[in-house]
Parts: sequence; C-alpha cells; structure tokens
Amino acid sequence: MDIKDSVHDHIEVRGVATDLLDTPLVQRLRHVRQLGTVTLVYPSANHTRFEHSLGVYHLADEALSHLNVEGQQAERVRAAALLHDVGHAPFSHNVESVVHRHTGKWHDDVHELLESGAVARVLSDHGLNPDAVADLVAGDGKLGQLVSGELDVDRMDYLVRDAHHTGVPYGTIDHERLVRELSFVDGELVLAEGNVQTAESLLVARALMTPTVYSHHTARISKSMLRRGAERLLDATDTTAEAMRRMDDHDLLVALRQCEATAETARRLTERDLLKRAVWAEMGDVPEALLERDHDGIAQAERDIAAEAEVDPADVILDVPSRPEIEETTSRVIVNGEIRPLGDQSTLVGALRAVQRDQWRLGVYAPEDVTERVGHAASRVLGLDIDGSLISDARPGVHTTLDDFHEGSG
Amino acid sequence: MDIKDSVHDHIEVRGVATDLLDTPLVQRLRHVRQLGTVTLVYPSANHTRFEHSLGVYHLADEALSHLNVEGQQAERVRAAALLHDVGHAPFSHNVESVVHRHTGKWHDDVHELLESGAVARVLSDHGLNPDAVADLVAGDGKLGQLVSGELDVDRMDYLVRDAHHTGVPYGTIDHERLVRELSFVDGELVLAEGNVQTAESLLVARALMTPTVYSHHTARISKSMLRRGAERLLDATDTTAEAMRRMDDHDLLVALRQCEATAETARRLTERDLLKRAVWAEMGDVPEALLERDHDGIAQAERDIAAEAEVDPADVILDVPSRPEIEETTSRVIVNGEIRPLGDQSTLVGALRAVQRDQWRLGVYAPEDVTERVGHAASRVLGLDIDGSLISDARPGVHTTLDDFHEGSG
Amino acid sequence: MDIKDSVHDHIEVRGVATDLLDTPLVQRLRHVRQLGTVTLVYPSANHTRFEHSLGVYHLADEALSHLNVEGQQAERVRAAALLHDVGHAPFSHNVESVVHRHTGKWHDDVHELLESGAVARVLSDHGLNPDAVADLVAGDGKLGQLVSGELDVDRMDYLVRDAHHTGVPYGTIDHERLVRELSFVDGELVLAEGNVQTAESLLVARALMTPTVYSHHTARISKSMLRRGAERLLDATDTTAEAMRRMDDHDLLVALRQCEATAETARRLTERDLLKRAVWAEMGDVPEALLERDHDGIAQAERDIAAEAEVDPADVILDVPSRPEIEETTSRVIVNGEIRPLGDQSTLVGALRAVQRDQWRLGVYAPEDVTERVGHAASRVLGLDIDGSLISDARPGVHTTLDDFHEGSG
Amino acid sequence: MDIKDSVHDHIEVRGVATDLLDTPLVQRLRHVRQLGTVTLVYPSANHTRFEHSLGVYHLADEALSHLNVEGQQAERVRAAALLHDVGHAPFSHNVESVVHRHTGKWHDDVHELLESGAVARVLSDHGLNPDAVADLVAGDGKLGQLVSGELDVDRMDYLVRDAHHTGVPYGTIDHERLVRELSFVDGELVLAEGNVQTAESLLVARALMTPTVYSHHTARISKSMLRRGAERLLDATDTTAEAMRRMDDHDLLVALRQCEATAETARRLTERDLLKRAVWAEMGDVPEALLERDHDGIAQAERDIAAEAEVDPADVILDVPSRPEIEETTSRVIVNGEIRPLGDQSTLVGALRAVQRDQWRLGVYAPEDVTERVGHAASRVLGLDIDGSLISDARPGVHTTLDDFHEGSG
Repeated sequence: MDIKDSVHDHIEVRGVATDLLDTPLVQRLRHVRQLGTVTLVYPSANHTRFEHSLGVYHLADEALSHLNVEGQQAERVRAAALLHDVGHAPFSHNVESVVHRHTGKWHDDVHELLESGAVARVLSDHGLNPDAVADLVAGDGKLGQLVSGELDVDRMDYLVRDAHHTGVPYGTIDHERLVRELSFVDGELVLAEGNVQTAESLLVARALMTPTVYSHHTARISKSMLRRGAERLLDATDTTAEAMRRMDDHDLLVALRQCEATAETARRLTERDLLKRAVWAEMGDVPEALLERDHDGIAQAERDIAAEAEVDPADVILDVPSRPEIEETTSRVIVNGEIRPLGDQSTLVGALRAVQRDQWRLGVYAPEDVTERVGHAASRVLGLDIDGSLISDARPGVHTTLDDFHEGSG
Repeated sequence: MDIKDSVHDHIEVRGVATDLLDTPLVQRLRHVRQLGTVTLVYPSANHTRFEHSLGVYHLADEALSHLNVEGQQAERVRAAALLHDVGHAPFSHNVESVVHRHTGKWHDDVHELLESGAVARVLSDHGLNPDAVADLVAGDGKLGQLVSGELDVDRMDYLVRDAHHTGVPYGTIDHERLVRELSFVDGELVLAEGNVQTAESLLVARALMTPTVYSHHTARISKSMLRRGAERLLDATDTTAEAMRRMDDHDLLVALRQCEATAETARRLTERDLLKRAVWAEMGDVPEALLERDHDGIAQAERDIAAEAEVDPADVILDVPSRPEIEETTSRVIVNGEIRPLGDQSTLVGALRAVQRDQWRLGVYAPEDVTERVGHAASRVLGLDIDGSLISDARPGVHTTLDDFHEGSG
Repeated sequence: MDIKDSVHDHIEVRGVATDLLDTPLVQRLRHVRQLGTVTLVYPSANHTRFEHSLGVYHLADEALSHLNVEGQQAERVRAAALLHDVGHAPFSHNVESVVHRHTGKWHDDVHELLESGAVARVLSDHGLNPDAVADLVAGDGKLGQLVSGELDVDRMDYLVRDAHHTGVPYGTIDHERLVRELSFVDGELVLAEGNVQTAESLLVARALMTPTVYSHHTARISKSMLRRGAERLLDATDTTAEAMRRMDDHDLLVALRQCEATAETARRLTERDLLKRAVWAEMGDVPEALLERDHDGIAQAERDIAAEAEVDPADVILDVPSRPEIEETTSRVIVNGEIRPLGDQSTLVGALRAVQRDQWRLGVYAPEDVTERVGHAASRVLGLDIDGSLISDARPGVHTTLDDFHEGSG
Repeated sequence: MDIKDSVHDHIEVRGVATDLLDTPLVQRLRHVRQLGTVTLVYPSANHTRFEHSLGVYHLADEALSHLNVEGQQAERVRAAALLHDVGHAPFSHNVESVVHRHTGKWHDDVHELLESGAVARVLSDHGLNPDAVADLVAGDGKLGQLVSGELDVDRMDYLVRDAHHTGVPYGTIDHERLVRELSFVDGELVLAEGNVQTAESLLVARALMTPTVYSHHTARISKSMLRRGAERLLDATDTTAEAMRRMDDHDLLVALRQCEATAETARRLTERDLLKRAVWAEMGDVPEALLERDHDGIAQAERDIAAEAEVDPADVILDVPSRPEIEETTSRVIVNGEIRPLGDQSTLVGALRAVQRDQWRLGVYAPEDVTERVGHAASRVLGLDIDGSLISDARPGVHTTLDDFHEGSG
C-alpha cells in the first residue's frame, strides 16, 4: 500500500505494518495532535501522531535496509516503529504527566496495550511477540536504539515534520543522510566516519526548535492549563486516569466542556483566551529547593500564592520545568576508525548543554487582570530574586524579557 | 501582529483583523478541518479553516495593495476575508447540505452571525457595517468578487494549502503572480494582459485536484457516512440543525459517539472502517430522472435498494452528485486591450467542462460483506446500465475501474 | 557513491554509473546549461545537463526496481539513462538544429560517441555493448521506452527540475507516483489501472511549461540569435560543425566573442541586449506555404525582408517553428483491465493538441530601433494577414498581444 | 518589473534598480557562479551572482520598508544592494586573492567601477552619487551595515540560496523574520527584543554550512588549483590582473584551456580529475610560524616540498587558510530594552568561535599517484606533528579522518 505524505511524499507500507495500520489502536492516533497546544502558537501545526507514526515507520524501513537488517528481526522493528506512539494520551505530551502520576505509565510503556485486541492478533498472525515489540518501543536492546535513542528515527521524523507544519525552518535536518550513515559497531548504533557535523546538526535543530516551538511560553501556558483541567476532571467526575489515557483529543476536549468544574478552562483553550505570565524567572533567580518539590509541593505553593494575592486558587498555575539534565550526550560517531561519544568530539555539544540551562524558565500564570498582583505574591512566597525580571504580560513594555513572537493569537 | 504560516511564511495581521482574530467565531475555525474526511485518504491533511482564513486574509491584503484599494473599503474586504468561513458547519462542506436542508443556510450566508456578539462589537469599533461585510462574504458587489468569485483569493489559498498538506502537487499554482495581475476594469475583476496561461493554470489545478483529492471515492464515502450520521443525530436527539451548525468537529464527533443511533457510524469513521462501493457508475449509465430526485427521493431509493437486497436500510447509502454545471467560466482576461471571457480565449476551458462530466460518478455504498448483493439490487432498482462497470470493492480485480490510490488506509 | 541533488535529495550512484560518471563525456555536461538561453528569462535557471542526467539515472533506477528489471538488462538501462544527453551541443537544444544541418546528427544519436574512449572502456569493463546502450538512448526496444518515449523518466526529471530552478510551479508533477505506476504489458510501457489523471497531469505540466518557459518569446529570440551566431561562426572560421557539437557553453560563447563576425551577437547575448519582436503572428495569419520552407527558403526571406526594410541583413531573423505535430498521444493507460491510448480516455488530451496550435507563433526579430520598419516589411514580403496583431516591442501599448512576463531583464 | 526567482518567488524591481539591471556590469554577474568550484561537490550549485544580487536587492527593499527608510536614501541602498557584487572576479571568491595581490582590490572595493560607464550614467540620472553607493557596498555608514555587516541582507540571501541549490538544508534560516526584526538604535543596526534565537540561528547556519559546503575539502582543492592556474596565466601571458578581474567564468576557463602552461589544470577542473590530499592537518599539529607566512613564503615551501618528494613543483599545492579570527561577534540584539552584543547573551556564540578553530585544516594537495610521497615530504619540510593523522586520499581506509561526503564525483 502506498500512502501520500506531506513530508516523505510516498510511503510504501508492507508486511505486518499493512495489517497494523487498520487496528483501532493505530487509527486512534489520527485524533491525537502531534504537538498538542502548540497549534495555539503556530496555527498550521495540526499534524497528528498518525502521520508521524507512518513517517517513523518509513525512516525505520529505510534505515533497516541500509543496515542490512532483514526478516523477522526487521519486521519487529517496523512494527515497533508504527506502534511507538500508541501509548500517548490525548494532546500527546501535554497530559502525559497527569496520566503517569495516576497510572505509573509513560507513553512508551505499551506492553499492556499490545497484549490483547486487534494488535495482538495481527502480531501473532505475523509470528511476532508483543512483548518483544514493546521492548523495542521502550528502546531496549540493540535495535531498540533505532526506535528510541539519541539517533532514533523518531526524532528525525518529528524535527522535519514539525518544521514543515509550523513553518519554523530550524528543524530542517538532512534526515536522508542521517538514515544512510547509521551503522552498528559492537552492538552500538553509531554514525559512520565523517559525520560529526551531521550529528551536530541534529542537536542544533533540537536546540533551536525547543525554545521557538516546543517550549514557547504560550505553548507552556496552554499546556499547564490543559494539565490543570485534566486533573480536575479526574477529581470531579468518575473518569479514571486509565480511561483518560485512551481518550483522543475530541473526547478530552468535549469532556472538559461538559464538566462544570472545567468548562471555563475548556472555553479558554478553545477560544485562545489564555492565562498570562505573572512571573517568568531564570534559573539563577529561583531557590534550589523549589526545583526539588514534587506535585503536592507545587500544588501547595499555588494555594499559598493565591492566598497571598487574594485570588481564587483556580487562577494560579505554577509551572516548574524539571532541571535541565546535564546528560551525557550518548550519540556516537566514528572518528579515525574509533567510536567516540559526540560530546568528546564536538565543542558545540558542550555549548548546547549550557544553552539548555540558559533557556530554562520558571513560570507563574494567572488571568490577565491579576498578573501583577499574582506576580508580586509569587515572588514573596517562592523567594524569587527577580526585582528587574518580574514579568507581567498585562503591562508589556515594563518587564518584557522574552520572545513575544506570535503573542496575541498566532 | 506577525503569524507564522506553513504556506505563506509570515502573515502580518493588522487593523480590524487583529481584533477579529480573538473572537470566538474566528477561533472556532481552529477546530474545523479544512477538508473534513479527506484526511482519511491523505493523512497529512489536517489543516483547519482557521489557518486557511488567515491565508485568505493575507492574499486579500496583497491584492488590495496591488489594486490600490485603501482605507475603510480595504478594511471591509480584509474583515470579510478573515470572516468568510465562519458560517461553516463542522467538517466544512461535509455536513453543509444537511444543515442547509434544515436551516436554509449555506456556509457563506453569515449576515446573522455577524450581527451580534464579539464580532459585531469589533466591526462597530472599527466603523464597519456587519451587513456590508456579510455581503462581501456572499460575493456581492465589485470587491465581493475578490472574496468569492472565479478569481477570488479563497481559491488561490486553498489550492496551494491543500497541495502543501495532502502532498498532492497539482494545486501548486503561481498565486503570487495571480494576486499581482488582478485589476478592475469597468467594475469587473480581471487578469491583466498576458495572463491567459495564468488563468488556465488555476482551472487546471482545480480540475486535477478534484478527482484526486476533493472527490476521491474514499472521501465521498466517508462524507456520505458523516452526512447520514448527522441526519440521524438530528432525528434521534434534540440537537437542532442550527445548533449543529455552530458545533465544531470535536462536538459533532463526540455527539455521534454518545448517541446510540450513530455510535457505530462514529466508530467506523474514527477507525477508518468504511463502507465500500457497491456501484460506481458513469453518467451515461444513469437514467436522467435519477439526477432530478430530491433528498426524499434519494432516501426512498435507498430504502428500496435495501429491501431488494434484503439488508438493513441503515447499510445502504446512495450518493448522487449534482449534475456538473456547464457553467460559463466567468473569469475574465485582458487580450489585446479588451476584456474577454476566458472561455472564449482558451481551448482548455472547454475541455475542462467536458472533463467534469467524464469524472462524474454515482455511488452506492454498503458494508464490505454485502457490496455485491447491494450492487445488483441497486442496479435493478435504479435502472442502471452497468453490466460491465458494476463495482464491488469487496472483490477487487473483477470490476475495479478506478483510482485505488490509498485504498486501504492512506 | 551518494550525491546530493537539489531535486531528488540523495542520489545513490552504483555499478557502471559510478565509473561512467568520471568520464570526460559525462563531466562535460556540467558545462552545458539544461535550458540554454532560458536563463535570460528566468535568472535562476542555470542548471546543467549533468545534474539532469543524474536525476534521470535516479528515476530510471527507481522505475527498474518497481518493474523488477535486474542484472545486465538493468545496468544497460542505467548506463543509457546517465548517457542519454552526452550528444547535446552547447546550450542544449539551442544549437542542435545547426549541428544537425551540417552533421545529420540529433542529440540522441550517440552511437559514435560511445564507440571509443573512456566510455567505451567502462562499458566494456562492465560487459555492456555500446551499440545496445546507444539504441536505448534512441528509444529503441522495450526498455528504450523508459529512456525516451512518452512516459520516459527524462521528461519526469526535467519538468520537476525546470520548475525547481525557474520558480515556475507548473512542472511540479507527482514523479514519485509516475515511477511507481509504470508497468510493462505485452512489451508496452503503460501506467497501471487508476492513473488517467496521473498521465494527464504529465501532459498538462508540459502544456503549461511550454509557453511560459520553453517557448517564452525572450527565450525564442535569444535562441534564434545564438543559432544565427553559430551559423556565422561556421562560415567565418575553420570551426567544423562536428567540433562545435563537442564544445561546451564556455567554448562556444568565447568563440563567438573572439570571432569578428559574431562578436556583436556575443555581446548582445552576454549583456541581454536582445533583438525585439517586429512580428509575432498566429498560425491563422500565416500563409501555409511559409511553413513548408526549408532553411535556405527562410534565409532568402530574411534577406528579402531586410532589403524591403532597408536594413542590414544581419539585423533580421525569421523564426518559423515547425508545424505543431498533431501526433497521436501514445501514452497508454490501463482502464478496466485493458490497455488504452490515453487520447481515447482523456478529453483533456484532445484539448491539449488544440492548445499547441493556438500557442504557435511566427516571429520576426530585429534591433529595437527598426522593429516597426522591419515589421511592416515582413508583413508585405511574407504575405501575413496581421493588420491588428503586428507587434512592435519598441512601442509597447500599441499591439502587445502577449505574455510580457519578465520582459526587460528577468 | 517583476522577476521570477527560485528562492523569493517574485521580485519586484523598481526605480534605479530597473535601469541598473540592464547595465553590462550587472549583466556580467549572470556569468559568474556564486559558489565557484563548489559545483564539483554539489552538482546542482550552479547559481550565479546575478540572481543572488537580485535577492539581496529584494531583501534590502523589504528591510528598508520595515525600517521606514524612504526616498533617495533608500534608493541609494537599493542601488548598493544590486551592485554589491560587481567587483567579483570570475568564480567569485576563488580567484579573489590572486587579483588582490596584484591590484590591491577586494571584491567590495567598487569605487572605480561605478565611476564611469553605464552604471555611472544611470546613477547620475537618478541623482545618486557613485561614491556614496560604493561606500555602502564597502559597509560604511549607518545604512552600510544593511549591505555589508553581521546582520546584512547579503548573508541572509546567500545562506538560503546556497541551501536551495546545493540541497544541504543547514542554510535554511528564517530570513523573513530576520528582515522584519531589524531596527536602528543609536545608529546601530540591531535585532529587536526577543530575537536571541533568531540571531543565533544565523550564526549556526553559517557554522554548519561552512565545513559542509563552503570549505568542503573538494571545494578547497579545486579552488587552490584554480588559483594556481590563474597565477600561471598571469605569468605566462600578457593578461593583466585588472583584466582578469573583469573576465567572467567563460573567459577565464577558456583562457586557461588556451594557454599551454595551464591547459592541464583546465582539463583537470573541467573533467573533475582533481588533485588529492597529501596532508590534512589540524591547527594543533601545525607550527605557529607557518600561519604567518606570506604568499612568497608559501610558494617557497611548495618548492621545498616538491624537491624533498622529488616531484614536479607544479604538482604540489600548499593551502594554509588564514587563522580563524577570534573576532568579536558584533551582532547586536535588544534584551530587556538594552542593546547587547550577541556574544554576551549567547552561550552558543562562544562555542561557535571554538568550532571555527576545530574545523581549521592545513592542506597539501598533489596528484593521486604521489600523495603519499608528498605527504611525508611535507610533514618533514613543514615540521608537522601528524604521525597518526597524515592523510593520503589515494589510500582510503588508512588515515581518512574526514567528511568524505560526495568524494568521487558528487
């Protein structure tokens, strides 16, 4: 079967993938937007996990062919590529942490989902073990690196696809070259000789797409609102987190509209009438301890800020991203015939780690008419050191320190 | 305000448009897919009426600048361009005929929608008359031709945008040139000297996009199922057609899922488990009278076919497109200093009319396991002359006469 | 070997093609512009026969893989694809007729060129017969249709490539689909079931690209000037037509600059100081007999016009394109399991034949200051019926009947 | 006048630019390739300085409009933008240093060229002073920063254009955004608030394009060969450096072919039969003093190496790029209402400086059959510390330490 794709043009679907495509688990991904609320910043970004999954399948297929992996082993990887996102909650990553807190499951934990139903039947018909496929989705094993790892085809597809649909060019990597230059050396997925720049370009693309697209402040605000709404929906109704995980975007949005406790959040998200930033603070201005707080600690802080500012607790959201991981970049490239970690070869990689820290921001969000009050309250409650950098989106010109691209409606 | 768009790159929104953008009427368009169920054929085609409306606004703005139209007159056109699709029902054209049958309103009849609420307030703040704007949306008046007419910017945007998102290149017209070559002569919107090919390319693009995208048989089947579902929802619940018109895609799809009478249709659409063609007949094989039947006549025929085939009436859909209009192509081009109808200048235009007739097909759709039975029954009941051309998608290879691109899942 | 291409992204060159690539015959194509003087209309159109040949090789390779042609048979086709343009004179088609008049060879007559030298050695090393490869280049035999025929990969590559480099979108066909849908039935290359529109789109693309790009009047004028210059160079120097055929663009242009008789023509071409149209007449206004004249007859007419207008014979060029061939469109598509000529299936094809006739124009070109005088003289000498349509580019606004896109400098 | 461009689509040329376009000085740029010998690595990269100059004119025009610069001041900038590259020698930067050594002129020193001839007449007709225009080309004055400086439109055009034509995506910056975000503060050209990433993306694009495209080793080898050929042509014939500066690519290539001393170099360049690397050494392995040598010092070293290796001196080229300038990045961005140098704001910028040093390589080139001999000789003569990193392209697999993308023929 030949499927037309806006990014890869023609995708030829064969073997087990043909049968998997028609299962409800995969078709559901047509109804889960790839970038959740990012469409509120970039209106063209309405692409779904379905087309992305086809793209990942396609690149995996190409990579396998260049790597000379064949037979059942290859079929298993192709199945995993097509299925790698079936565990996503509605709006992709936006609701994932809520679901995880209640179910213990991240989106790439799909063992249970593949064990029964149509997908299990198709895998079994093709002689594939659901557990082995789910292991690949989780990134386990030598071939798992291809599906989930620093050089995985997932990342290659989403960078190019997100660039195509947002219109932001930074994600335009040379994915065709990347796929061709992969090889296995001693069980490690590496890039062949002469690809330091190819590897760097992948990291740079992410480094530029992150603040511009994935963590754009409007995306973060709307995502926080959606998360808050999802939490309340679990509290206020008999919807379970497990059921929420299996909803699609339509189900969740309409459920938020139909529940009294969340109707206003749903309206705000629908009409792009979003909360605004009351605080937008750099890492250096935030007490260390704040970064260690768990969900309950954050919730308590939100209530404290609301009390201090004398506003409805429902009107304050505290958004503390996790500490930028000073992770070892594990991408490996071959240089002078030896496998070397990209971090050792590339001056850029070190810089990108620092950039990640520079771009980190703590946010406090509130309705437009109380941002200033909430901002000052949050500063006191949280012990922030932000004399000069306190933000109030409601009074632009005073403390705007950031990328206001698309602010308004974009 | 500057908005990033996947097609036009940067769109600068100014004046009345900035305020209109934040109204619920316009924001709702974020939740109405531009091509309805076409995404079931082309998975990347998830773009919405919102980004399309921004694109139409952008091209209108460019055209006005080339035409030297300024001031309030220009603001009115820009408002109309941004608002031109607010009257669309969920899934755009798919549900439009159902809504029209019950309310008498097509999507471009927006007088009532602009009369009150946030949009009315914004228009009034900018000194614009809602009725005058609605008239432009309906294509009335000299400048209305720019918003809705044979050379309108609506068409220019959707052809390029649909090409970008489906991946089908045929819609890739030279819209920048079209917009620059427009002029008004004696109150008529015309293309300047030397643009016969430019005008032809617009018609050709539509002629190639129609069968490949807009009327692809899978799109027609799913659209028919959606229409049938919408009808039943009106019958089975207290939802009114007027209320349905104001739903967005999420509302309608979840309403279909929640109503017992339509849950199976909703499941089929969600999981792309579609009806198949039982008949796919050319115009020459169809009795003239059949084309004259109204909605009740068609519904009666569906019941008759079901009875003849001994299947559940819910399982038969008869899809009779309206007779291809042998319309005068009213596009005007300047040739040797005179305004001439494109049809007089262009040999291609005559051919495209004939092509439209060639591509017309009557369809009868049914669940896969009864297509053959229903096909024969329909042939007898409708008096079709289709010995050789009777289709049964369930037995491919026997009578497949058509474009099976993406059949399966695309 | 992996080569980066602006159209097909990565092209993988293997087998005999790798060795052919490094031969002088193929490397020479780097120095022959694909569209000759069209760059004077579309400044970005500087692509060469070299990259086009790589593209044709690439599409042939893809088509062969879909057609399951393998082994030596496939190698022969791949060699022919890469070599198919080595017979081109400088500036591609522009000088071809001059060379043909003196040598009897068209560009696809390459038997002699492949018989000796590096190419012959490479072919022999790979067990391929030069004559058999040259036959494929000429379009002979079943597989020759793939290299040169109505559905050949040559056309697919040049339409897309010319669109990419000129910026004119009309050539943007779905070449990936075309290549996938080819099949052989009874020794005929055909498009598989369901591809009437695919085939039509190929014809439409050519029909729109021809007047806009390939036969744009500025391209025709400059091409006529180049042809005239080449003729004089053969007369005035000891350069032979056979030697001219083997020159590249640099050689020919500098030779024109260095020869006294052609230096002015070279200057005009270099500085885009072109002749202008004195006449631009439709087929209906031209006496039948004029179309039958051979080269000497045309040359005589040029001298007669110059005498009548009292201008230097060097200043008059008469450009009579050959009669549009009412050729049978031999593209074949499968419809209802039968092979049918596209012409029988497609209303568009008939129209495109008529369009070709509509677009035909006879041109008379002269320096700007004498176009009117030469126009009237030509009208009398040639017996044209062009009261109203006589052109004089020197007085725009009077009789401009055409596409003046880019007139000036573009 | 409206010109079609493969990068910016439609470019509208107005005012003084219309008349400048038809001057020989500007039309000559049609015959000077933008990237010189880079086409030997990326076969599609045949774009010229002419289309690039149009692109720079177009972006300057857009920037001026966003900066509200009008009247004669704007005309002067537009003239400078269109003329900014008329001082380029054939093959752009490839031959520039040779011309500079003999004439003292770099390509942006155009005062003399604009003082007389058609360009001077056009400028005078439009009331513009040639010297003032030439000053802008040299980057002088407030508005000169727009034509030549760290945020100039020259760079924006060439990055995007080179990406489009090579097929290497790294240059795909968001030029539309850059042009819109420029502003003048206290006479300094700066990027408005919220554009740290925008500025970074420009630097990153260059940092990735440089090793992959501009300084690809095959481009460097062929450029060195061309330079050597140009030097010899000056020695062996009565061609002057000033005359060479005014040649175009055709003239120079044919002159090299026609001169006995350079015919072999011309053949090698034409047929892509290039020298290979005998040494490719990192900065740390090269004695400091070597970087200080002037042209004569380098020439002496070449002779010494040839003597040591017992090969013809014509067969050894020593290519020592200038020391990477640890230049202050002068791009300025507004942050918190203050103008700040990008270097202070961006962690990436510091890293990119280091990257530049990492990527520096000294090269010694020789014919394939003597690379090893020449490599060892050069190591001794130059005192290199390259036990392990000595390259010999002739024996791949032994010491290949680099990007061999497209090695072979690309």
